[in-house]
This record gives sequence, structure tokens and C-alpha cells, in this order.
Amino acid sequence: MENRSAIAASGHKFRTENISQRIQNIVISPIKEMSILADQFARESGADIISFGQGIPYLQTPAYIRQAVKLAVDQPDTGKYTLEPGINELRELMAKDICKNKGVDAIDPEKEIMIAVGCQEAVACALMALIDPEDEVLFFSPGYASHMEQIVLLGGVVKFINSTLESGWAVDLGEMEKAVTKKTKAIIFSNPCNPTGKVFSKSELETIAAFAIKHDLIVVSDETYDFLTYGDTRYVSMAALPQIRSRLVLCGSFSKKFGMTGYRVGYAFADGGIIDHMLKAHDALAICSPAISQKAAIAAISGDDFLPDYIGRLSQNRELMCGLLEQMSGFFEFAKPQGAYYILARYKMPGVDSFELALRIMREAHVITIPGQAFGPAGRDCLRFSFAGDSNLIEEGFNRLKQWQKKLQN
Amino acid sequence: MENRSAIAASGHKFRTENISQRIQNIVISPIKEMSILADQFARESGADIISFGQGIPYLQTPAYIRQAVKLAVDQPDTGKYTLEPGINELRELMAKDICKNKGVDAIDPEKEIMIAVGCQEAVACALMALIDPEDEVLFFSPGYASHMEQIVLLGGVVKFINSTLESGWAVDLGEMEKAVTKKTKAIIFSNPCNPTGKVFSKSELETIAAFAIKHDLIVVSDETYDFLTYGDTRYVSMAALPQIRSRLVLCGSFSKKFGMTGYRVGYAFADGGIIDHMLKAHDALAICSPAISQKAAIAAISGDDFLPDYIGRLSQNRELMCGLLEQMSGFFEFAKPQGAYYILARYKMPGVDSFELALRIMREAHVITIPGQAFGPAGRDCLRFSFAGDSNLIEEGFNRLKQWQKKLQN
Repeated sequence: MENRSAIAASGHKFRTENISQRIQNIVISPIKEMSILADQFARESGADIISFGQGIPYLQTPAYIRQAVKLAVDQPDTGKYTLEPGINELRELMAKDICKNKGVDAIDPEKEIMIAVGCQEAVACALMALIDPEDEVLFFSPGYASHMEQIVLLGGVVKFINSTLESGWAVDLGEMEKAVTKKTKAIIFSNPCNPTGKVFSKSELETIAAFAIKHDLIVVSDETYDFLTYGDTRYVSMAALPQIRSRLVLCGSFSKKFGMTGYRVGYAFADGGIIDHMLKAHDALAICSPAISQKAAIAAISGDDFLPDYIGRLSQNRELMCGLLEQMSGFFEFAKPQGAYYILARYKMPGVDSFELALRIMREAHVITIPGQAFGPAGRDCLRFSFAGDSNLIEEGFNRLKQWQKKLQN
Repeated sequence: MENRSAIAASGHKFRTENISQRIQNIVISPIKEMSILADQFARESGADIISFGQGIPYLQTPAYIRQAVKLAVDQPDTGKYTLEPGINELRELMAKDICKNKGVDAIDPEKEIMIAVGCQEAVACALMALIDPEDEVLFFSPGYASHMEQIVLLGGVVKFINSTLESGWAVDLGEMEKAVTKKTKAIIFSNPCNPTGKVFSKSELETIAAFAIKHDLIVVSDETYDFLTYGDTRYVSMAALPQIRSRLVLCGSFSKKFGMTGYRVGYAFADGGIIDHMLKAHDALAICSPAISQKAAIAAISGDDFLPDYIGRLSQNRELMCGLLEQMSGFFEFAKPQGAYYILARYKMPGVDSFELALRIMREAHVITIPGQAFGPAGRDCLRFSFAGDSNLIEEGFNRLKQWQKKLQN
């Protein structure tokens, strides 16, 4: 069997007595496994490791948000549970923001918005509200690793719609008709896509919407990177398609846009009938999103002066990393991303497992990358690189990779 | 069918199209439903509502913790994901704290401690790691409502071990032998118990441990209220029993002890083989606990000067509320709690559903209580009162209840 876990590939044995089958079927997303293994390795070896792994932006949480957090600390209600669906003010601001930025006519914040512990928990709640064991979910591969684990954790079945590097990771929507069955309940994808940087066109979204209507499916659209496209690429939200209104769960986050990955605050926008049920899962999993993080989000949403500079720097990082990968074109090939801050590059070492390779690069070159198999079968023979970090670390990391590759050839 | 949801009892209709059976089987814990409904009612009616509902202590997060949070805000890593299992320093402090306060010889923080989004997420992760659909979990009723919902959400079966007010909510451990089957995977309970305030003696814990060993079960011990017992009652942790070491998941929280319910930070201590799997669920649900909340926890754990005063005031509140309930002894009967900050009082209105009654009291007397049925069948004809709030609000709330009851008699 192919590797699915970097921790397992590193030799770790898992307990089986008294352990559920559901949890034995899943892994910690290799995105985080690589951080955990690198932290252990660094503490043991003293190595100084550069991460192109977990998608953490260089951006420090902007000062206007930090200022609001400091003021919030002494407010007595910051130490207390918020209402389970989120602070009313944040739900209202979020509804307005989605209307403005995603082209929705009107949203009822009380019925159609849920504040979650990051986009991750919002998607987990959505899947809990939608699938029972043996239900199927269509998953565009390469796609976000945790979506798969979430589906399998619930006893669901991931049906892969595979795409290729050669097509620029274009999703073959015709493949969906072959994959759909009576057990299919939903389609899930991220747009812009983590890990490929693909951005869906309006016409692609329309095709997905028509397909969902035809087969009575719910569309779970993870729009964590909605603020981040490059060049002429235009971002269109699934929410801009009114025909899908009652069968859409849109999940988003403050993490990447506002440099707030550590705060764990995200949201879901969906038909009130779906939110009703998602709130049950949210209660069972988390009770509420942290009050202090929700207050940080209230502040964050009111400002975006920092965004042009931030996106400009990420755009420069993209050029930088694409250039460095091109310098290694004997070893890597890739499609330039249109959005998000990842590149999924295919390596030219036939037969080498992406988990083995990522572990080797971490230990030998002291650079974290993410094994492509983590993103489904179409990620085989690939590594994911994040270019969200500091540009000087990108250069230093690629110096290490080049040196490492040179040794390999000798 | 008996009510299980205050929102449903208030007349709300739920969507069924495209919705999973698993989620239709559960409810938002009525503890939070009552807060949501009261918030709606207050905004519609302008009523000023007093809450004996959700267990939020009067205590503001102590100043030394808030000071540490303010300093943490400007540290760049506070805006970023922590390692998925938690910040290493916090895991180390937590391991030492459990050794010291719960009588464990030695804990490996890296393998045996997971930092979670509150105790709620820790328990959710534990159940995901332990049960598959149709597996059974023994649940002492009355017990914490969300534990039931978490089990049912996962397709598991709740097997009730019922106790009675007459026995002071003593758990009849003999009933466990009648309830256990080959499908039973775990026993779950909170100690001190929410909602009854029962505290388990060492000999009761030893009986549970022997039973778990005999039937190859895992014990999930929710020790959120471990700091809070009254009078001569001595708290013993399940972790103090070495014979159960490999089959114990101990979940705890910073929420109630440190006035940090809003921060969403808790932990699990278990055999490394179980933690390994819980971390997979944790990743799929939340990625990590908020960095700022983990830093608040690091500060919190190093101080407890405020505790004697805090516990003293809660002890006074307990005397106050017990006295007020005794003044209404024509209407309520109860057993004085030994720990935690709840009283489960039985009302003398035969045939009146506890959901209907709690909604009526909220709307007519403007006091939030929690329907006893939320805690399992043994909570029937009861309401849960929290005495964690301000003492003057306890007095005012009972004035309202007495007035309301007087009108009822006329």
C-alpha cells in the first residue's frame, strides 16, 4: 500500500487495541506531520530547518488588529463563552462582507452565518451535517488533504476527480459524471486551490453548479484564499451563482488574509436549514470560537490597507520561487499558480515515494516540503512548496535544495 | 417522543433535504440552546434575563493571565499556527501539573499530552479515536449533555446508567454489569459531575477501573471541575489509579478554574498510543488550539493565588442557592452538590416536560435554567441551576422565580 502518513513512513507504529477503525483509516494531514517531525528532528539534531511546508504567511497580524486584541483582553466578556453560533456583531459584519466581496444580494446573519474555529472546523461541521457512513463525496485531486481525512473520519467515501500537471491542473468536469452515484451527497474543493494554485473560472463554477442541481448535491466551497489571485486572474466565488444558493456551503477564514492562522477563526455561509444542523456539530466539537479571536476578526474585517502590499509581496515571492524551480528544471516541473501561495511541483525521480522524498529532503537538506500524495492520487510524484514565507528564506531554502540535488547526482 | 431540543420545543422546523441522519439524530446541547433562545427573546422583547444556565463563572480572567496575553499579542508567533499537538512548553507544564495535582508518577509530555480547543474538543477527539458506528458507551445519567451528543454524532449508542435524586445521585455501579455488552468500548463521565455536583470516591473509581479492565474498556474521565469541591469532600482523579494508566483518557480544561471559558483551551492526557490517534481527529477538526489561548494557559498554570478566594465565593454561592431552593421546597427538591457549581433540582409539577418548563420560566420569569432531560433520562422532571454567577443575581433570579411560582398557584 502507498504511504499516506509521513509519521508512519518515518517508522512510527500505531496502537490498535481499543482504537476505532474510523481513526485508523485516517492520518494527521501530512502538512502538519511534516512540521511535527521537523520539530522533533530539529530538537534532536540542532538543525536549523527552513519550511516550505505548512501554509503560514510571513505577515504578522497587522498592528490595527493587535491593538484591538489588546483592548479586548480587559473586557470581561472576552474571558467568557460567546453565543455558540458566534458574536452577533461579527455575524452581521461577515454577512455584509460576503455580500460585498462575493456578489450575494442579501444574507440573514442570524440564520445563515456560523463563526467557526477556522475554516477547518467549518468544513468539518458541514461534512457532519451532510454525510452518513458510506456516503460519497466528489473530491478534485490534487486537493486539500484535510478534506479527505474529514470525509474518511466520518465513514464517508472519497471519489477522486483527478487532474494533471500537463493540463495546468484543469479539472475535467466530464469525469464528474462518471464518478457520481446515488450515494454521492456533495462535491468539495478549494478555490483558489490548495495545493495547485488553480483558480476556477465562472464558467467552470457554472458547470459545477448545474451538475450539483442535476444530481441533488451540496457544494462545499472552501474559499480560504479568496483574496489572493495573481496577474489577470479574476476570482469568482461560488456564492455569486444564485442558482446554487440553497445547496451551497461556503467556508472561509481570517487566517491567511489577515495573518491570523494562530487565532483559529473562520466562518460558514449557507442556507439557514444547513447552518441549523452545522451548529449542532459546532457545539459538540468546540462550543464556540474563541471570544478573543472573534473580537480580532471584528477588528480585522474593518480594515484592509495592508492588503495591496501583502499581495504584492506574495506575488514577488511567486515569481521568485517559480524562477528558482525553473533553475532546477532538470529535477522539477510545475504549472505556475494563478492564486493561493502554493506550487505543486513534480520531481523527476520515477518510483520514489513522495513521503520518502519529503522526509529525506527534510533530514538531508533541512527543508520542509509536503508529499504530493497527501493531496490525492493526482499528487503522486509531486512536492508542495509554500511561497508565503520570507523571500530570503525562499532563496536560502533553494540554495540548500540545489546543493542537495548536486550531491544526489554525484 | 420526548423533547430533546429546546429549539425544537420552541417550534422551530429543521431542514431534512440533503441532511445526514447522524446530524438529525443530535441537538445543540440544550445548555447552549437556552442561551441562544434567551438572546433572541431578549432582543425581541427587551427583557433583562438572568442566567442560571450555561456554566460561566463570575470570575473575570485573573489580571496576571490578562497581562501575559497582552504581552503575547505582539509576539510574531502568536499570529501563527502552533504545532498541531500544542506548544511544547505548555505540554511540559501540563504534564508536571497533572503529576503534581492528580498523583501520577511520570508523564511524557510529547507522547501523552494533547492541547485541545477546550475540554469539549478533547472529549470529541477521544470518542473519535475509540468508537465506530454502533459501538456502545456507558454514560452515567444525569451526565454532561454534550457527551451524549458527541457519541450519537459518531453513530455510537449511549447506554444509560441511571441514578436517582433520592440516593444523592449515587451511581449504582452494579447497573454497569447489566448494561455492558460486547459492543461496549468506553465509559464516560465527569468528576466532579456536571450537572449533579456528585464527586466520585476513590473506592467508586476503583470499582470503575476494575470494571474497565474486566471488560476491556477505555475510561474517558472529564475532570473540568477538578479544582472545585466543598467542605470535607476530597477530589480523587482517575489518573491516580495506576492500574488504569493504559486505558484512561483524562480530559480537562482551563475554562472554569481560570475564568477562561472564552479562550477555548483544554487538554487530554492518555496513553501515547491513544494520543497518537486523537491527534488525527484534532487536526481534522481544528488544526491547533489558538496560539494566544495556549499562551494564556502557560501563564495561568503558573499561578493560583486567586483560587482560595474564588472557591470561597463559589462555596458561599452554593450555600446561598441551596438556601433559596429550600425556601421553595414546595416546588423544588434537590441534593446538595459536593463539587462543581451546579444543582439539579426536581420540580413538583408531575407530567410537565422539562423543556416546556425551562422555556416558560425563561419567557415568563426571565430566568434561564437548563431542562433536566438534556442530561439523560434520569434528569427528567429536573432543572439545572448554575450558581457560578454573581450572588446578587442569584438572589434576584430567585425573587423572580418565587414571584412566578406565586402567580402559578393563583
